Amino acid sequence: MSGIEAALTETASAVDEFLHTAMPEPDGPEAVLFEAMRYASIDGGKRLRPLLVVASGGLFHVGRQNLVRTAAAVELVHCYSLIHDDLPAMDDDAMRRGKPSCHVAFDEATAILAGDALQALAFETLASPETHADPAVCCELVRCLAIAAGGHGMVGGQAIDLEAEHAMLDIGEITRLQQLKTGALIAFACEAGAILGRAPRAARQALRAYAHDLGLAFQITDDILDAEGDPTDMGKAARKDAAAGKATFISVLGLDRAREQADMLADQAAAHLDMFEDKAELMRDIARFVVERRT
Amino acid sequence: MSGIEAALTETASAVDEFLHTAMPEPDGPEAVLFEAMRYASIDGGKRLRPLLVVASGGLFHVGRQNLVRTAAAVELVHCYSLIHDDLPAMDDDAMRRGKPSCHVAFDEATAILAGDALQALAFETLASPETHADPAVCCELVRCLAIAAGGHGMVGGQAIDLEAEHAMLDIGEITRLQQLKTGALIAFACEAGAILGRAPRAARQALRAYAHDLGLAFQITDDILDAEGDPTDMGKAARKDAAAGKATFISVLGLDRAREQADMLADQAAAHLDMFEDKAELMRDIARFVVERRT
Repeated sequence: MSGIEAALTETASAVDEFLHTAMPEPDGPEAVLFEAMRYASIDGGKRLRPLLVVASGGLFHVGRQNLVRTAAAVELVHCYSLIHDDLPAMDDDAMRRGKPSCHVAFDEATAILAGDALQALAFETLASPETHADPAVCCELVRCLAIAAGGHGMVGGQAIDLEAEHAMLDIGEITRLQQLKTGALIAFACEAGAILGRAPRAARQALRAYAHDLGLAFQITDDILDAEGDPTDMGKAARKDAAAGKATFISVLGLDRAREQADMLADQAAAHLDMFEDKAELMRDIARFVVERRT
Repeated sequence: MSGIEAALTETASAVDEFLHTAMPEPDGPEAVLFEAMRYASIDGGKRLRPLLVVASGGLFHVGRQNLVRTAAAVELVHCYSLIHDDLPAMDDDAMRRGKPSCHVAFDEATAILAGDALQALAFETLASPETHADPAVCCELVRCLAIAAGGHGMVGGQAIDLEAEHAMLDIGEITRLQQLKTGALIAFACEAGAILGRAPRAARQALRAYAHDLGLAFQITDDILDAEGDPTDMGKAARKDAAAGKATFISVLGLDRAREQADMLADQAAAHLDMFEDKAELMRDIARFVVERRT
């Protein structure tokens, strides 16, 4: 297993362990809700966002428990957004992470509520003294995650994406859409390590620049995988964008230029980390992984 | 106008002013999302939960801005839950607060996203230094609101409520359901003033006892209004519970005993506030108002 795969696996298992503790096996009449929350969050996905938290925190000697709890909070927000995005009224996707979507495995009402409860759990997790002994750090985490996840971040991007089905976006508009929809949460994951480590402003700035390029590289690669990927490998439907006639990086740039652009952005992301010298090796590996992955 | 009505009006206008600032008139392609968020949260409802924050904070000389921001955060969570509860997959209500529900005025996808963004905004608001200069206080607010709103609180109650349509609940089960579904957020509103005021444990305990009885009195009165209320006055559908054959306080206790029970609980709630002497007059008025209201 390569270094990055080992790091992903290790992060995934630490996050899962936390999620098992935070959402114990359900009991009582609310059992179904907790089953749905567990179904949609435990043991699924690459855990790229958690790994970004762990890797960025590694630059500043942040404690293991602080990193794992923060990583789990980011993943909880990501998972809740996937549940809601998959709903019939939204993207209407029946498969997610290689299994039936939450509303298919349970029902729509339960899926809506499970997403809502996962979002609340993310903020509960960050606001706890177990996430950081300094409440000012916890507040900063809550505030930054809420902004990244809200109307001026992830949810705003999803709203623009819905509108985009009726409008031909240009490359600038697609870039902004994706910076909100996927970029904001990825940026928070990269910055979280610096917040936890009370890093100096310049370091935080560098991570923000890295996250900006990484987020776009990630999304362009997602569009490439959607255009040519295998739905079985990906664990979800493919070629949905083209079928919907949606403007994507591929429809605007074409496959070859999109691939070049993603590569260039990954290199550029890594270059922002020069000040961290050898300590940023994992962060640089993540940038390569993001554009070279097959799922 | 009675004292309580004046207090409700004043609180409502302070909360609305904050919400206007927090969600300025929309611009750009995410305009529809922000329109929906504003539609579902500004200028609507009695603002009972915000008044409870203001009234409980008044016991401990909490600053006006701290109270208004916290009150708005509670109301944002309440409003997001109403949007999601009204969705076709949930309670399927077309009217709310005297106007079309959010998903009717916009569409389902926008309503889901608007609810999600309002929840994030609630936590963003609480985690800001403008809500309290001491970050430990902000963290405590975030943590307690997240617990009250999440799977072990409001969302858990809503999940049990959905299950309850297929099961005949007894009085103990209905009480627990309502303590989660509406009681948890009301309890947070009552406790928020004590958190902001760094009140001694005994005072916080008293407020929790008050909130417990008030929450039940509120819900029993809601059931009474649903059974005999006028949908035009209420601004939403009435007699839905009976039509759905749902177990409520009325179906189990009958109207007369339910009315007695609500009255008794309101008196009991007020009695928990003896330690605050005259300062708790507004809190006592709220308890009476909760059982005497007609909408």
